[in-house]
Amino acid sequence: MQKLKIGIIGAGRIGRLHAENIVANFGYVKVKSIADIFADKIKDWAYELGIKNVYTDYKEVIKDPEIDAVLICSSTDTHAKFIIESAKAGKHIFCEKPIDLNPEKVKEALEVVKQEGVKLQVGFNRRFDANFKSLRDAVMEGKIGDPHIIKITSRDPSPPPIDYIKVSGGIFLDMTIHDFDILRFLSGSEVEEVYTQAAVLVDPAIGEAGDVDTAIITLKMKNGALAVIDNSRKAVYGYDQRAEVFGSKGCVCIENEVPSSMVLSTVDGVYSEKPKYFFLERYKEAYIEEIRQFFECILKDTEPPVTGDDGLKPVLIGHAAWKSFKEGRPVKVEYDIMGGAEAM
Amino acid sequence: MQKLKIGIIGAGRIGRLHAENIVANFGYVKVKSIADIFADKIKDWAYELGIKNVYTDYKEVIKDPEIDAVLICSSTDTHAKFIIESAKAGKHIFCEKPIDLNPEKVKEALEVVKQEGVKLQVGFNRRFDANFKSLRDAVMEGKIGDPHIIKITSRDPSPPPIDYIKVSGGIFLDMTIHDFDILRFLSGSEVEEVYTQAAVLVDPAIGEAGDVDTAIITLKMKNGALAVIDNSRKAVYGYDQRAEVFGSKGCVCIENEVPSSMVLSTVDGVYSEKPKYFFLERYKEAYIEEIRQFFECILKDTEPPVTGDDGLKPVLIGHAAWKSFKEGRPVKVEYDIMGGAEAM
Amino acid sequence: MQKLKIGIIGAGRIGRLHAENIVANFGYVKVKSIADIFADKIKDWAYELGIKNVYTDYKEVIKDPEIDAVLICSSTDTHAKFIIESAKAGKHIFCEKPIDLNPEKVKEALEVVKQEGVKLQVGFNRRFDANFKSLRDAVMEGKIGDPHIIKITSRDPSPPPIDYIKVSGGIFLDMTIHDFDILRFLSGSEVEEVYTQAAVLVDPAIGEAGDVDTAIITLKMKNGALAVIDNSRKAVYGYDQRAEVFGSKGCVCIENEVPSSMVLSTVDGVYSEKPKYFFLERYKEAYIEEIRQFFECILKDTEPPVTGDDGLKPVLIGHAAWKSFKEGRPVKVEYDIMGGAEAM
Amino acid sequence: MQKLKIGIIGAGRIGRLHAENIVANFGYVKVKSIADIFADKIKDWAYELGIKNVYTDYKEVIKDPEIDAVLICSSTDTHAKFIIESAKAGKHIFCEKPIDLNPEKVKEALEVVKQEGVKLQVGFNRRFDANFKSLRDAVMEGKIGDPHIIKITSRDPSPPPIDYIKVSGGIFLDMTIHDFDILRFLSGSEVEEVYTQAAVLVDPAIGEAGDVDTAIITLKMKNGALAVIDNSRKAVYGYDQRAEVFGSKGCVCIENEVPSSMVLSTVDGVYSEKPKYFFLERYKEAYIEEIRQFFECILKDTEPPVTGDDGLKPVLIGHAAWKSFKEGRPVKVEYDIMGGAEAM
Repeated sequence: MQKLKIGIIGAGRIGRLHAENIVANFGYVKVKSIADIFADKIKDWAYELGIKNVYTDYKEVIKDPEIDAVLICSSTDTHAKFIIESAKAGKHIFCEKPIDLNPEKVKEALEVVKQEGVKLQVGFNRRFDANFKSLRDAVMEGKIGDPHIIKITSRDPSPPPIDYIKVSGGIFLDMTIHDFDILRFLSGSEVEEVYTQAAVLVDPAIGEAGDVDTAIITLKMKNGALAVIDNSRKAVYGYDQRAEVFGSKGCVCIENEVPSSMVLSTVDGVYSEKPKYFFLERYKEAYIEEIRQFFECILKDTEPPVTGDDGLKPVLIGHAAWKSFKEGRPVKVEYDIMGGAEAM
Repeated sequence: MQKLKIGIIGAGRIGRLHAENIVANFGYVKVKSIADIFADKIKDWAYELGIKNVYTDYKEVIKDPEIDAVLICSSTDTHAKFIIESAKAGKHIFCEKPIDLNPEKVKEALEVVKQEGVKLQVGFNRRFDANFKSLRDAVMEGKIGDPHIIKITSRDPSPPPIDYIKVSGGIFLDMTIHDFDILRFLSGSEVEEVYTQAAVLVDPAIGEAGDVDTAIITLKMKNGALAVIDNSRKAVYGYDQRAEVFGSKGCVCIENEVPSSMVLSTVDGVYSEKPKYFFLERYKEAYIEEIRQFFECILKDTEPPVTGDDGLKPVLIGHAAWKSFKEGRPVKVEYDIMGGAEAM
Repeated sequence: MQKLKIGIIGAGRIGRLHAENIVANFGYVKVKSIADIFADKIKDWAYELGIKNVYTDYKEVIKDPEIDAVLICSSTDTHAKFIIESAKAGKHIFCEKPIDLNPEKVKEALEVVKQEGVKLQVGFNRRFDANFKSLRDAVMEGKIGDPHIIKITSRDPSPPPIDYIKVSGGIFLDMTIHDFDILRFLSGSEVEEVYTQAAVLVDPAIGEAGDVDTAIITLKMKNGALAVIDNSRKAVYGYDQRAEVFGSKGCVCIENEVPSSMVLSTVDGVYSEKPKYFFLERYKEAYIEEIRQFFECILKDTEPPVTGDDGLKPVLIGHAAWKSFKEGRPVKVEYDIMGGAEAM
Repeated sequence: MQKLKIGIIGAGRIGRLHAENIVANFGYVKVKSIADIFADKIKDWAYELGIKNVYTDYKEVIKDPEIDAVLICSSTDTHAKFIIESAKAGKHIFCEKPIDLNPEKVKEALEVVKQEGVKLQVGFNRRFDANFKSLRDAVMEGKIGDPHIIKITSRDPSPPPIDYIKVSGGIFLDMTIHDFDILRFLSGSEVEEVYTQAAVLVDPAIGEAGDVDTAIITLKMKNGALAVIDNSRKAVYGYDQRAEVFGSKGCVCIENEVPSSMVLSTVDGVYSEKPKYFFLERYKEAYIEEIRQFFECILKDTEPPVTGDDGLKPVLIGHAAWKSFKEGRPVKVEYDIMGGAEAM
């Protein structure tokens, strides 16, 4: 009855989330094994969930001939290497974003995936959110005509630890990368040029780590549309995830989701709920849906809904965003030449 | 690892929903068996879900000594009988609403439950909806002061089949019963008097079956608050489930949920999404939460969140609503005397 | 250039409002004189506004042959008498609501108006509010099909003085009378039967004065629709004026207006503005529009948008509401027989 | 009783609007005369309104010793000249925006105003809109802490005639100039640097006239905040005027205004009203309020709410925006050096 057997590499927050979602929602998929360098710490959790094999060494997962697909949820610096090894072992691959901070390494990994003919889906979860999907559908169905202006607001409730920031590639490769993906998703077009305005307004320690925490990025799309993304690492009212596409025939937008629709009116004013706190709450259903579609593309042998190319391009845009910030001028995204990519 | 074994009686729409929710969400609960008079029709579904025992005879479920709890999801006329037999077999019971159309039979069943000391939870799912819960919390925390006016809008997207209507006890015992429950939940008080204004405006066939399809019911609560429920069997724009509590210090209300927050502005106007279509969509999470709390009350040996008494009272209010409609005058709810209860 | 000369009787809050609106908005109308029993107190205000004649005696206004129309803004007990005298003097009449608490006296006044062939418009200002107008237009254009359920919420921010309440005819003739009018306006139908549920929940002194302060009134319309009005004398968050018409093809509703669309999101929640405080703020534009249409109906010799009959019927419904409350049963509105009308 | 006598120069759409607003709202102000090069065409309108003197020559207004203040509503190329002559004649001045496209000429006019000690208020009407005012108040009261990101959406329902565009100074000096003003108003800070991304997406004829019709302008404020303005000459759903200020303690935003709050739900979706059509509808009250405050600053001898400096700075920012667009790079606003200002 179980049609797929999978293994998971990396049992941090997102690895455990995927494991729990699979057990809870996909009876036809068995999570056979999980690997984490801190295997001891996750054993109880894994057994409770019915995952029998918990390894320290990720190779145990990859070399198991019974396993059909691997979910790569380890730290970013290991993604490309694990993709290559998994592909060579003939496993289908779901890999968290970004594939790598270095575009050359991303390309290398994609090359192996192509050679081995396995599926690779990259973890851009927002595409599977009902709101972003409705927004894209409206655009693709021509309801707003030709897109002229695309706006994305993306603000986190609080910054990650400074130690994480140091290895993250900086805000544009860690956080804005999702927005670059959504921009491609919503517009059906590619980014041509980027101009970055950014500052350290939230926490000086972020600046000392070489990163910025507040940014407005304007982008020029190949289809002529103009776009703007605004980011902050700290929105005290919660995760702020909105978008809008304006075009020749109208405008379509999506708002934040709230825990409940309750509205309280008193002598002090009218109060309603803050947005859902962060990505685990807001994209709860999206995380399930992206995995569902990953399994479907394996079982039906179709193209994954987020391809390797979809994984590469936001990395290239992220580098262009950094270069623009450093040089104080608009920068064209270099899709062909990889050498010398800029980062934080 | 699995701490509870349960059986399900009745594999119609709601029985199957509970089974799927349990398999998908509660790894610590095993659905050991399911009984349905059309057992053949559900076999494939049950096996796919990992339920090994599928019976025609509900007694097979009740007599199984391994089973801790029974979910009664069969037709209303069997509920009281199955509750009694399950209780006598020492099983904890989750029973869909209403327990019975006849208050005497409800009382009889509750008596046996009490004698046997098993848990009984009645399936008033709306109490577990995030919106209704937020609304109640605001009221209970005193945010609106003393409740003065309580308003509930409850409209279905389309009427059930006429054959179902004929055995349903009519709109007040089938549909409004949920609103009577929510009214008790939101107010923390009991209904004293009911006045029913109702008509057949949706479909004459509903009238020919002895029922009505549109109603405004006003109610007087023991705490002095006034309440009003408005019902329709047919809201063409989807399931309309709103509520409002107004009091000495403010007003709190909840709105419908929508599939997405998308808003489209064009030359023709501003469009947004219709409410979620019906109860399966709107109360998707609530159905999981009510079952979670049922299992919790067994495991922790606490009072069920919806008791047998909570199951009985809305039936009594429903009878008062019918009596008011038939006699064209306000009617007090008879909590003590059972004989001669009015129905459709 | 000034095509109309008018006089105003009664310079309380509403009389002064009309005077100021006319001076500010209708250059083609001259407010020639104003009468008030406390003429001294309004002299400065009147001169400042350019009204040259300020009288203690209302007869000075009515007997002036130059005056085309009279606005009656004095206390309710004088309305019928002033209507009759003005009509006999050949003046067109705008009269604040209600014409009189006694339906017989209303009828008598309407009879004289009819005989003299002058125009009479009654001051049901809400009909001229953009929101209520849009709601009615949607209903009349058939956008929601046949009306099934009509809901009106009407709550004041705070009760009037007890001395006013004592002579007001009580909540149903003073406050709900506007809602009865709006119900007729929105439905295009007449009220057949009324059932009143009411209580004293806001202030015991209101009860001691013989009135109630909280009510839910259900009504049966001649076109088959059901309706419900809920009232409170004290909504601490401001004037609450909403309405909804539900029908066979959809539902249309209007919300409160706010001073600004500002929404503030902080760590404590999401705040927006309370509704506009009371009728002067909410219906500011409506008061101007009703007067504009009064002048138009004179200049174009057309039917006033709110007729004497529109003034009478809500009084009859108000009496039925009181009767229902006192007798604890639904009551038919008596359109033909006047004797023995019930009031507070 | 009338405390001020004023004259108006220019009786186009905005001149006539101000005249009508003054007659309708400010009984203490007399519009004594109006000048327009097409005096014949406005005579009937002026007499109807009670304005007795209608001149072809603007000098007739300025030289009238009885006149206290002049409203300059003529074409932009005459503003500076008329300001200078009015100031020299000792008149207080309300001048429509922009004072001039050439910053040197603006400075020259401001110099004369200063020498003559008359009041000058510039017609940035949006500052007097209840929504923008609430937004600014929230920011100034510290409700969102330090501003980090400021966003302004400003889209017209349809482009002006090409002939107008040719002499308008282009989108940044004609349309965005309002947004530059609002940005200063909301932030309480000055613009340091501008980067313009713009395109011709609405109508090629606009491009042929040397202008653009779609733009995203990012700005760096002296207080460290980042800002972005998005413009379109054609929003088919109506005038789109929204703004948002995000900061260390929260986020405050304002939405469009609608003609009514009506919401219609049918089988086809949920429909609500489009934004008010254009500036005359949206800023109806703001136009009255700006004039009220102009008169107040004269009568109370206080600083005008929008000063000459407030008129100059947006012109400088507009030139920087054009320069950035032409040179494809971020440009600092030159507040000191006037020579060589760039325009369309």
